[in-house]
Amino acid sequence: MLDVELALARALEHTGLAPAGAAEELAALADANALDLATLGRGGEAAATPVPALLRALRERLGDGAAAEYLHRGATSQDILDTASMLVAKRALGPLLEDLGEAAGLCAGLAERHRHRLQPGRTLLQQAAPVTVGLKAAGWLSGLEDVRTWLAEIRERELAVQLGGAVGTLAALGDRGLAVLADMAGQLGLVEPPLPWHTIRVRPARLACALGVALGMMAKVARDVILLAQTEVAELSEGGAAEHGRSSTLPHKRNPSGAVAVVACAQRAPGLVATMLSSMPQEHERGAGGWQAEWETQLQLLRLAGSAADSLTAVLRGLHLDTDRLSANLELSAGLLMSESVAAALAESLGRARAWELVGQATQTAAREGRPLREALLELDEVLAAIDTEKLDDALAPERYLGVADELIERVLPTRRGRASAS
Amino acid sequence: MLDVELALARALEHTGLAPAGAAEELAALADANALDLATLGRGGEAAATPVPALLRALRERLGDGAAAEYLHRGATSQDILDTASMLVAKRALGPLLEDLGEAAGLCAGLAERHRHRLQPGRTLLQQAAPVTVGLKAAGWLSGLEDVRTWLAEIRERELAVQLGGAVGTLAALGDRGLAVLADMAGQLGLVEPPLPWHTIRVRPARLACALGVALGMMAKVARDVILLAQTEVAELSEGGAAEHGRSSTLPHKRNPSGAVAVVACAQRAPGLVATMLSSMPQEHERGAGGWQAEWETQLQLLRLAGSAADSLTAVLRGLHLDTDRLSANLELSAGLLMSESVAAALAESLGRARAWELVGQATQTAAREGRPLREALLELDEVLAAIDTEKLDDALAPERYLGVADELIERVLPTRRGRASAS
Amino acid sequence: MLDVELALARALEHTGLAPAGAAEELAALADANALDLATLGRGGEAAATPVPALLRALRERLGDGAAAEYLHRGATSQDILDTASMLVAKRALGPLLEDLGEAAGLCAGLAERHRHRLQPGRTLLQQAAPVTVGLKAAGWLSGLEDVRTWLAEIRERELAVQLGGAVGTLAALGDRGLAVLADMAGQLGLVEPPLPWHTIRVRPARLACALGVALGMMAKVARDVILLAQTEVAELSEGGAAEHGRSSTLPHKRNPSGAVAVVACAQRAPGLVATMLSSMPQEHERGAGGWQAEWETQLQLLRLAGSAADSLTAVLRGLHLDTDRLSANLELSAGLLMSESVAAALAESLGRARAWELVGQATQTAAREGRPLREALLELDEVLAAIDTEKLDDALAPERYLGVADELIERVLPTRRGRASAS
Amino acid sequence: MLDVELALARALEHTGLAPAGAAEELAALADANALDLATLGRGGEAAATPVPALLRALRERLGDGAAAEYLHRGATSQDILDTASMLVAKRALGPLLEDLGEAAGLCAGLAERHRHRLQPGRTLLQQAAPVTVGLKAAGWLSGLEDVRTWLAEIRERELAVQLGGAVGTLAALGDRGLAVLADMAGQLGLVEPPLPWHTIRVRPARLACALGVALGMMAKVARDVILLAQTEVAELSEGGAAEHGRSSTLPHKRNPSGAVAVVACAQRAPGLVATMLSSMPQEHERGAGGWQAEWETQLQLLRLAGSAADSLTAVLRGLHLDTDRLSANLELSAGLLMSESVAAALAESLGRARAWELVGQATQTAAREGRPLREALLELDEVLAAIDTEKLDDALAPERYLGVADELIERVLPTRRGRASAS
Repeated sequence: MLDVELALARALEHTGLAPAGAAEELAALADANALDLATLGRGGEAAATPVPALLRALRERLGDGAAAEYLHRGATSQDILDTASMLVAKRALGPLLEDLGEAAGLCAGLAERHRHRLQPGRTLLQQAAPVTVGLKAAGWLSGLEDVRTWLAEIRERELAVQLGGAVGTLAALGDRGLAVLADMAGQLGLVEPPLPWHTIRVRPARLACALGVALGMMAKVARDVILLAQTEVAELSEGGAAEHGRSSTLPHKRNPSGAVAVVACAQRAPGLVATMLSSMPQEHERGAGGWQAEWETQLQLLRLAGSAADSLTAVLRGLHLDTDRLSANLELSAGLLMSESVAAALAESLGRARAWELVGQATQTAAREGRPLREALLELDEVLAAIDTEKLDDALAPERYLGVADELIERVLPTRRGRASAS
Repeated sequence: MLDVELALARALEHTGLAPAGAAEELAALADANALDLATLGRGGEAAATPVPALLRALRERLGDGAAAEYLHRGATSQDILDTASMLVAKRALGPLLEDLGEAAGLCAGLAERHRHRLQPGRTLLQQAAPVTVGLKAAGWLSGLEDVRTWLAEIRERELAVQLGGAVGTLAALGDRGLAVLADMAGQLGLVEPPLPWHTIRVRPARLACALGVALGMMAKVARDVILLAQTEVAELSEGGAAEHGRSSTLPHKRNPSGAVAVVACAQRAPGLVATMLSSMPQEHERGAGGWQAEWETQLQLLRLAGSAADSLTAVLRGLHLDTDRLSANLELSAGLLMSESVAAALAESLGRARAWELVGQATQTAAREGRPLREALLELDEVLAAIDTEKLDDALAPERYLGVADELIERVLPTRRGRASAS
Repeated sequence: MLDVELALARALEHTGLAPAGAAEELAALADANALDLATLGRGGEAAATPVPALLRALRERLGDGAAAEYLHRGATSQDILDTASMLVAKRALGPLLEDLGEAAGLCAGLAERHRHRLQPGRTLLQQAAPVTVGLKAAGWLSGLEDVRTWLAEIRERELAVQLGGAVGTLAALGDRGLAVLADMAGQLGLVEPPLPWHTIRVRPARLACALGVALGMMAKVARDVILLAQTEVAELSEGGAAEHGRSSTLPHKRNPSGAVAVVACAQRAPGLVATMLSSMPQEHERGAGGWQAEWETQLQLLRLAGSAADSLTAVLRGLHLDTDRLSANLELSAGLLMSESVAAALAESLGRARAWELVGQATQTAAREGRPLREALLELDEVLAAIDTEKLDDALAPERYLGVADELIERVLPTRRGRASAS
Repeated sequence: MLDVELALARALEHTGLAPAGAAEELAALADANALDLATLGRGGEAAATPVPALLRALRERLGDGAAAEYLHRGATSQDILDTASMLVAKRALGPLLEDLGEAAGLCAGLAERHRHRLQPGRTLLQQAAPVTVGLKAAGWLSGLEDVRTWLAEIRERELAVQLGGAVGTLAALGDRGLAVLADMAGQLGLVEPPLPWHTIRVRPARLACALGVALGMMAKVARDVILLAQTEVAELSEGGAAEHGRSSTLPHKRNPSGAVAVVACAQRAPGLVATMLSSMPQEHERGAGGWQAEWETQLQLLRLAGSAADSLTAVLRGLHLDTDRLSANLELSAGLLMSESVAAALAESLGRARAWELVGQATQTAAREGRPLREALLELDEVLAAIDTEKLDDALAPERYLGVADELIERVLPTRRGRASAS
């Protein structure tokens, strides 16, 4: 808020509305550390905004000079708070975008290094058919890149100065209101809006949405990590320092703490985004409750997204793949994972319906008796008649049933050049 | 959390699981002010709970004695955090219930003092038919009493100790787990649950719901106040100290800041309650994200409800009624407010359909020409034939069209005795 | 809505406000199947409530008799809609409570049958220490019973008639408004509220909360089922008919479709509950948007809770336990699951700190080298000195490290009598 | 869903994976009206998706030909449902975008026609300082244009075909998976995604966000209309047909039903958007609950946004401005509305602090005694000394204190050309 009052003071000087020197007088005395936050808090309670109390505190420090005379001229409380909140967003999005970029880069690395590494694909948490670690990582990459791009656009185009004065006409600045607005935007590196957005809350709502979607996407990656790190799956584990993931009671535990932290942050986002949306219909020229509800909510979204991105990056950086478990898990169902592949192969001669029926029968025998699917299939005369064992073994080979997984990875991997600039 | 570890230590002593004196040793050294919160925070990040870092910090202070040896014995991190969070809730509900009781009492006072004071009743923000200030206040009272009672029940029956050890079996306490649990509950004034509720989250969910409904109800009252305080309505205004409701730019403004604060708090509740509900399906014996998302969310709900209750009480305490404006607003529609009353009177002889038609016609004439409804009615021969002017004037008198408003008020006013105990 | 208008007509007769026979005339003609829903819909759009269009349609059918004359007398649209929505809730809660009762009973059965059946307890989805299947089912039972009891209370005490007339004074019923209200409550089996609750929305908000918490609790059970049914865990599977859980492409798949349906229903509840809460602050005597937003939202919550309870009951009824996999999963970590137990045993002679350190070391060796924890422990001289192998083997036996699991189950199992009445 | 299966069948033909004619055979028999929805519903319950039951129903109709053999080849249930849901979105966004365009155009018309029409600006629902009707409409316009543009972009770039087969590798289509995907995208007018997005839910989440923000923005306009239509403000009213806004009991009422409908729709959006966001972290290759929760939720958001836009357009089309009430309301505070203006004028000679103090004093006198601010000011000697009455009257003239309102309107009005294409 001090940065905003100062930018306003400088803009008043630049446009001839305040005498030279007033802004520097303010700059010299406007020290956040010198303010008593409890007093501002109590003032905020009385006025439904902390700005009047801030101005009182500043005026006390400024005494009688030009700075006091021109402080806050032309602005209303909401101008200061909204612009300050946009500045905070701009600053918070910096490290968040870097972390998201790094996380995406780490996924790209995984996708490249493991593009041919087989993994059971799972639908409704049941092994379904083979995928590759690379394809899974490519999915993560594409989602993270999407949300990163969106947040970067918002940082560039959506974060705007607020300046309208009491009711949005800039009346207290005479005919120089637009010049002051433009000057402030330039100083603060924020967008100059076409008109004040005191009660047109598309900007904060859209920022909240992008943060919410980004958190949802980060949680997708984290939830996969948690599921893959289960004792019974164990294809992945989080690395990290000695104390990472430790329990207060269990000596052997290595919890996926980083991924859990990401999920915990994301878990809180939908409710906060809903608050930002339900606060949009603000009354006339200033909201009576909705606007005030945005303040902490937006801050929390920024903090949660920032924390999650930091944790996610650490998780991805330290991720350890257990290739033995990957192989073992592929074998776990003794071929059931390949049922679609086999059915498709049989369908060539038997037709879809009969092929699916036979394979269904064989998978049930195999599951019931705990035997490999191959064995159960070879007991069926109709199968033997329809396909030779070589072709059957081809159909049972996971590495031959990956479709266009590799091309799909290629489609989302950044080009060498793109990658270089992203990291 | 220190209080919980201490209660556990005492319970271990009481049940013979720790030597006499261990708890007092802990009590002497477990000083919240001596802990470095930043260290705990970083530890919390690494372990997805702050408890291991807290234990490390305590053990450093405790050295090698019995207190260190028995600290946290039998408990898991979640036992400490959940119990601590229930303790915080218990403490926070104290002043909240007092404030709600005072707010309800103030509404009861309004209902009594103004039980015959006429006010335009408004539906969809249009004047509809007369009510009394007392009836409106009685509605507020009934809602506030409902949520107060609910929260009081929750405080009594729902806030429970958590103690289950690593997976909820209390295995590390041998056969004395239930004795330790009961002892802790007694010490802390919390409920002894039938079994650990590590991932059975009905308790925190229900607390959140009650806080959410209470906030919604408080906002109902506050929104009515804001609407009644509008410049164009002005039936009510907030009192308060000199700086209350002041604007940073407008010398004349007296904003309904207290009511706005209530609405702003309540605005944030639905999203937070949703977070608590969506966090309920926690995995197996400990949630991987859902539980962690509850911590700050529950705190915020408590803080928001507490703040809102404090503001609402202040608003109701200082409420100023402008009886002249009440009368003027009743006259504003020049009788249109009484259209149902007149139609009902006419229906006695003309039947419902024709009566409504005639009155509809008269209200349109009156509205179009800006004349009193009475004049427009008297111009209709069919009306003159159906009703004499005395009866018409009766039907146009708001004070004669209040139905059972008075009995309704009586039904919710606390008895003298009830009131005494409530306040 | 027809049932409500009819109950009102009868109440008018009972209290002498309408002539005998008017209600039966209405009963004869008020046939839901004869109404054109599209016309009601368009009327609802124009009036922001469907009631005026419903009345027009009814009056057309009724012609000129007493039924038409007294139809809807004294009521406002909201009286009809709110009471109708409470009636729907009452009816929908019937089967929902039965299903929840059956689900709880099925959990009680599981808890009894499998009270000594060992299962790995899992925290943050990592195997942590042993529990029993019975204890897990007892946790489910306790949560389901809690929400069932709450919903039953709400059905009994919270579902109320709405009757207030235009602005809540019952003015159009003269001095007999309260008698009409009481009569309607008796007829419809709903609560008689102390005063109209047109804009005091604690009742619908509380109903929504209870449905939301019930859905959250059901999803807890369902999520556990889904996780236990994973190919790699496979301790449980859903039974059901032949087509249950089938995939459109994969012949071998048996998806946990029932549990997925429960989670899908519950997933939608938090947002809907939030809508009910954010709709609470309704303006003056009738909400301008908030009330209207409740209609479909409450219906959806009832439908989702009903569907989820139906699916959950089916899931629990057909649940198949794979005891071999339970045993195999307990062995999976080769003893790591018992680390706390061993550390506690060692702590008796070595003290807590050293015991945890040694076990931590052994678990790392075991995990790194893929060997049993027992082996890694026996290689440590300090361990050998501190404990004899018999005691060590005791400490490594899961069935001896269950604490008070059995007593906890006992605490939540219904008594024989209670169970009888519940089912 | 039929359209998607058909597009898939055609794409299989185009890429040589199905024989010529199979698709037309399907086209001839795939008739939505011939399907029994109840059967599909029950099947959907059993399989957690309706697609298997749909396929069974189609295969029954298709008999043994090529269409049956190639139906659904290469696809998984989610491919069909996700693509269908994107198609529905594409179709629903058509009229929604048109309505939003018309609403924006109507706001532009208001802004132009009333750009100099004075209106009290209101903050926290208190009259604060003058604005113009045009500026208020310009604010609405800018917000509506923003959300319209966003939704149009989403329609163009975000709505994508889903095609991945069982686990996202397109394995069942051999090496022609990408060709089939591209062909389907072309046929359906949807985007071709870089890779399947079965569990990368940025697309549906972003669509939901845009709909939520659009609904929030529409509700801002509607809430302003409702507030301006209050009996005591009455600057605006909704027009519409005879039955529009009628009450079931009050002959005189003309409720702002259209605006209420908009608010009611928007009220439900935040919770639904939250559901879409909380459903994002879907497990591995297919979500177990999260995905299924999206289906109805997205439909509801589309329906609510569509309804709201339709209602809002009707409201804006019929809006009636009461210019007498606008003038009367400006006079209501007898000059208090101009306090900032007067204080600024006095500050030129007296300095900010003293000027604000004096005006504050005069506004209190005026308010307390019910006299014009001008009178109260003229009683203060210091004011008389500081300013002549002509300058004072200038400062008290609302039309001279509008700042850059006109330029602001200009900045958001579409150019003549843009307007032509918009309308």
